[in-house]
Amino acid sequence: MTPTPLGRDRLPVAVVGATGMVGQRFVERLADHPWFQLTHVAASEVKAGTLYRDAATWLLPNARPDAAGSLRLSTLDEVAASRVAAVFSALPSGTAGAYETRLAAAGHRVFTNARDHRMDDGVPLLVPEINPGHLELVRGKPGWIVANGNCSAIILELGLAPLVEPFGLEAVHVTTMQGLSGAGYPGVASLDIVDNILTYIPGEEEKLQTEPEKTFGTLAGGRVVPFALGIQATCTRANVREGHTQSVHVRLRRPATGAALRKAWSQFRGPPDVHRLPSAPRQPIHVHDDPARPQPRLDRDAENGMAVSVGRVRVDPTGRDVRFVLLGSNTVRGAAGQSILNAEHAYASGLLGPR
Amino acid sequence: MTPTPLGRDRLPVAVVGATGMVGQRFVERLADHPWFQLTHVAASEVKAGTLYRDAATWLLPNARPDAAGSLRLSTLDEVAASRVAAVFSALPSGTAGAYETRLAAAGHRVFTNARDHRMDDGVPLLVPEINPGHLELVRGKPGWIVANGNCSAIILELGLAPLVEPFGLEAVHVTTMQGLSGAGYPGVASLDIVDNILTYIPGEEEKLQTEPEKTFGTLAGGRVVPFALGIQATCTRANVREGHTQSVHVRLRRPATGAALRKAWSQFRGPPDVHRLPSAPRQPIHVHDDPARPQPRLDRDAENGMAVSVGRVRVDPTGRDVRFVLLGSNTVRGAAGQSILNAEHAYASGLLGPR
Amino acid sequence: MTPTPLGRDRLPVAVVGATGMVGQRFVERLADHPWFQLTHVAASEVKAGTLYRDAATWLLPNARPDAAGSLRLSTLDEVAASRVAAVFSALPSGTAGAYETRLAAAGHRVFTNARDHRMDDGVPLLVPEINPGHLELVRGKPGWIVANGNCSAIILELGLAPLVEPFGLEAVHVTTMQGLSGAGYPGVASLDIVDNILTYIPGEEEKLQTEPEKTFGTLAGGRVVPFALGIQATCTRANVREGHTQSVHVRLRRPATGAALRKAWSQFRGPPDVHRLPSAPRQPIHVHDDPARPQPRLDRDAENGMAVSVGRVRVDPTGRDVRFVLLGSNTVRGAAGQSILNAEHAYASGLLGPR
Amino acid sequence: MTPTPLGRDRLPVAVVGATGMVGQRFVERLADHPWFQLTHVAASEVKAGTLYRDAATWLLPNARPDAAGSLRLSTLDEVAASRVAAVFSALPSGTAGAYETRLAAAGHRVFTNARDHRMDDGVPLLVPEINPGHLELVRGKPGWIVANGNCSAIILELGLAPLVEPFGLEAVHVTTMQGLSGAGYPGVASLDIVDNILTYIPGEEEKLQTEPEKTFGTLAGGRVVPFALGIQATCTRANVREGHTQSVHVRLRRPATGAALRKAWSQFRGPPDVHRLPSAPRQPIHVHDDPARPQPRLDRDAENGMAVSVGRVRVDPTGRDVRFVLLGSNTVRGAAGQSILNAEHAYASGLLGPR
Repeated sequence: MTPTPLGRDRLPVAVVGATGMVGQRFVERLADHPWFQLTHVAASEVKAGTLYRDAATWLLPNARPDAAGSLRLSTLDEVAASRVAAVFSALPSGTAGAYETRLAAAGHRVFTNARDHRMDDGVPLLVPEINPGHLELVRGKPGWIVANGNCSAIILELGLAPLVEPFGLEAVHVTTMQGLSGAGYPGVASLDIVDNILTYIPGEEEKLQTEPEKTFGTLAGGRVVPFALGIQATCTRANVREGHTQSVHVRLRRPATGAALRKAWSQFRGPPDVHRLPSAPRQPIHVHDDPARPQPRLDRDAENGMAVSVGRVRVDPTGRDVRFVLLGSNTVRGAAGQSILNAEHAYASGLLGPR
Repeated sequence: MTPTPLGRDRLPVAVVGATGMVGQRFVERLADHPWFQLTHVAASEVKAGTLYRDAATWLLPNARPDAAGSLRLSTLDEVAASRVAAVFSALPSGTAGAYETRLAAAGHRVFTNARDHRMDDGVPLLVPEINPGHLELVRGKPGWIVANGNCSAIILELGLAPLVEPFGLEAVHVTTMQGLSGAGYPGVASLDIVDNILTYIPGEEEKLQTEPEKTFGTLAGGRVVPFALGIQATCTRANVREGHTQSVHVRLRRPATGAALRKAWSQFRGPPDVHRLPSAPRQPIHVHDDPARPQPRLDRDAENGMAVSVGRVRVDPTGRDVRFVLLGSNTVRGAAGQSILNAEHAYASGLLGPR
Repeated sequence: MTPTPLGRDRLPVAVVGATGMVGQRFVERLADHPWFQLTHVAASEVKAGTLYRDAATWLLPNARPDAAGSLRLSTLDEVAASRVAAVFSALPSGTAGAYETRLAAAGHRVFTNARDHRMDDGVPLLVPEINPGHLELVRGKPGWIVANGNCSAIILELGLAPLVEPFGLEAVHVTTMQGLSGAGYPGVASLDIVDNILTYIPGEEEKLQTEPEKTFGTLAGGRVVPFALGIQATCTRANVREGHTQSVHVRLRRPATGAALRKAWSQFRGPPDVHRLPSAPRQPIHVHDDPARPQPRLDRDAENGMAVSVGRVRVDPTGRDVRFVLLGSNTVRGAAGQSILNAEHAYASGLLGPR
Repeated sequence: MTPTPLGRDRLPVAVVGATGMVGQRFVERLADHPWFQLTHVAASEVKAGTLYRDAATWLLPNARPDAAGSLRLSTLDEVAASRVAAVFSALPSGTAGAYETRLAAAGHRVFTNARDHRMDDGVPLLVPEINPGHLELVRGKPGWIVANGNCSAIILELGLAPLVEPFGLEAVHVTTMQGLSGAGYPGVASLDIVDNILTYIPGEEEKLQTEPEKTFGTLAGGRVVPFALGIQATCTRANVREGHTQSVHVRLRRPATGAALRKAWSQFRGPPDVHRLPSAPRQPIHVHDDPARPQPRLDRDAENGMAVSVGRVRVDPTGRDVRFVLLGSNTVRGAAGQSILNAEHAYASGLLGPR
């Protein structure tokens, strides 16, 4: 049983990049966290010293937590010099890398949403329901980085995870219709998306094709040996605030029925230890029989954004060509919620504590 | 050389279902047609007798043609009793079938956008650039029906046509993001699509999987023998007024390079006779190198809506897995414009004349 | 002190028109009501007998209450023959009137959102914070109807209420930008509103100009003597799911300062009895200093949709020309939430009980 | 009769700020201009030297003119050193002022859309149909600046112009619902406007209240004496690509009938000399009887964007309180088209020629 800290003993944590779209999700979801207490927020240096509530337009549907609003923005140096037990990084990819390296070198434990270190040898690309053991890559180090994948990649990984063992994956074709929040704020110009679809998201398809191979990989010699998945992706941007919708075709190695697939998705839980973590969804994959579902507006918030949804399951007569629609919250399961779940898994694994 | 009628000798034609989304496109595009003169418009019986301009909200970006606005709506019986040389049908599928049968029995030549007769043995499913010879199915009959396919199917057929011969198609996976006008008017409720994607369009995927096999088929014994294409489709509705975007993956039988594919698409024209028809696009398939194209708002009106656009061409190292984005106007090339091109092809083939 | 029924003693209530936009709001907000228990739902006769969960697409952001989903749809006759303590009517205006008359004649107590009886002499047009005493119009009758006003009218009334006494209103000019949910479902066609504004809502301006005069009126001889307000309205429909935004100009009889206006709005509560009702907002009118507020997406859910928001207060140098932006939830405060508040006020006033 | 230059004698002109939203409108509308030939385009210095077609995403519905695409971007210094007959400025307000001052000092004739010099004494704020004589402010000077007003102001001025003389204006209340293109590109973030209205546009209301008083003013002593109009404005941003919609209430000094108002608007032409200019609309104000009109999507392009539209005319019983909806293209009549019309008026007035 995981030792649950009392309220007054919650571990102090920081969010860097706290004013952006994903940073706000971190702040929102750490507000009443049973194990972690948000004590530091940081963004660009020019905002340091201002109250968090004054530093940025709040972009999320629910109101900004009062306690977080009263925090003053720290500098990145102040966070680095602090004794927080974990740093959640929502810094922009590119900017994030060097700073996160510095944090780890200083003994910090970093949970990052940025791209920069995802493919590094010593950095797990973690989805605890899928590859909980990858966390062992960091055990024994004083400071380290745990990454979560690209938002589309995490959602796809959850949709594929229950199929890998029983059915095998020969090929995966996916077309995404991604929400606007995935591009951050200000992100996509309204003039570009009203009455339109953007059929290109630079760099996105590469991530969707390579990251899952690491997450599904196996540990060997202090690094991850990738697991070939043969993903081919086309990524587009749709006029939807939040939620990534994916049209997926998989070619299975062994035939399946619709019923068997539905059962595999519905019963997927991940390891019991992981399933009991505070942010873990009761049922990670919701399966819909209503052909109209999932839809982003109706399903992106399933289990507070931590569950993904599957529907429109169609199996060809051979049982090996399967199509389905997959949907998840890009800023929660695809970003901040995933990082927090990763930190919970690290804490429950004895890797986080007071410093 | 096709005999071009003088203005005063233009053939009288009718549009039935003239007040709906596709009906309006018919009216718009027949306004200044060199060969056809719109003399009859009909819609529901309750509107018969009213001026066309008063019968429906005009839904298209350009203004309603004045001459058409001054026509009085006929009843369907009046159209059936008229001497028009061709009837363009934009009646709703379901309603259309019996009436079109009756028209043909009375000696009329019908060009229909409705689904009802598409798969009938004696009815060509025509895209003149692809299967001009299918028109021979109707030669020698006093009255007949020529159909155009589903809007998504026509666009996909044009995108696939240049690939069939040189490279062969082993499998086709397509995910559509279809415009709102494809659902007619009033069609999709605004509450269903604001901040959303509809991941299911009843019946659409079946059409997209079967109709192209007829269009690419071969004539034998007065019917079409389908050509197996192995299309697997997922059809969705996006918050876009007009234009169907398709993410296509094809598995080729013979390897191709990106350059060879681009050339095949760019040089595709269809037979010279067809290419000279008044509504035929100068270049049926526009190929984009800019990775951001095609986009529905920028490319749906290419060549007055009669050309489709291809972009984001990606070929895997084996040369046999190819992905691209395909886009076209669903109400023009995918509906009314296609029907009019079919009629032009019939006229140039000696199958239409004064009655 | 209002006697609060225990859970098992909650009064049985019905919702008619339960599958529409406003009907769903009734069902949502009655799910955990401390005084009322939803026992009957009815919609069109063809749906009678089906489970509520199967009868309609759920349109609201939060999930449908489980208990309501398990109710079977009654016929309108069955509701009329039932012993429910109150009937909430979300029937369409036009249809609603005769049925509501019949319900009242049969001894039922009806809280209606429909237009039909709003201006009837014996029917209060109730906003308990403003005209609680109008409820006396129904006291002593065995069956009766209490109406709530048009959604835009209720929001405007709350915005004007704190100004009437201290400053006096010489003229009111209002331009509304109304949300799509105000037109019901399916309501506004997506093709009409994408990249557009609808500048006309039939009948809406008349309601906005006359209904507030009844709500602000005084009781005399068993009817309401209207209070002249001189409202001139222009009503438009915007591409927003929910929330009516109003640009208001008032010409005051006595000069005001911005500070005095802010204080009047902020401190407005209505009578203490009303303010303690379960659905009454803690602060009926939220006042914003941030010039960017209110915005529909950020402020329509204030106090669970029962509070309206005021911002952008601008006073001319004479102190008598005042402009502000006013915003509220059209389906909650402007419809279902208002009706439920009215019923709570009736219950607390001793007018509702077991039948 | 205005001397029309032959094609080869067209006056060379420049557009500065050519890559933005308004800059593109300038380029589009100068493409086939009978009097002016676009010879120079300039934007930010970093883009100087690149081809115009490569310098920016084209944002307008119609394709970019080929000739303009082949121009190389000049520096601002190169434009200043050139011999162009006129410089059209679409530079951002703030940046524009000093450069325009320098151009005028160097003998250039500047037609600017920027705010910086609008209220300067020697600068006419010109709408030739309304205040053609204000152009005399610049006669006799070697270099000078002619400004056009804020986009909302120009549209409102045209709507008010026919009413001033016959009926008199005691007060004007206007609420705008402005299109996204008015904020330039990238301008409004999509996350701010999907399912939302922005109820505040910094600085906009002040312009709308002061600029019309200058345009309607009278020349005296080399400056304009403002004409008091008493405009009170509330400006909002709607989810519409292009087109500013205005809900207007005017209090007239002398009573009017709806018929008299309609006639005044319909017959408004401006002086004959102005009405014959190439860009002048045939009928500057279109009046709609259909209560559903005007709508931005249907009416923003009236007369190629140079005409405004009026509808929903409502007159109270006294004849002095009048409400109407007014609509116009913010980037054409409200910006680039207006500047070009101003230049045509200057040319026809003998103020422009080869340098």
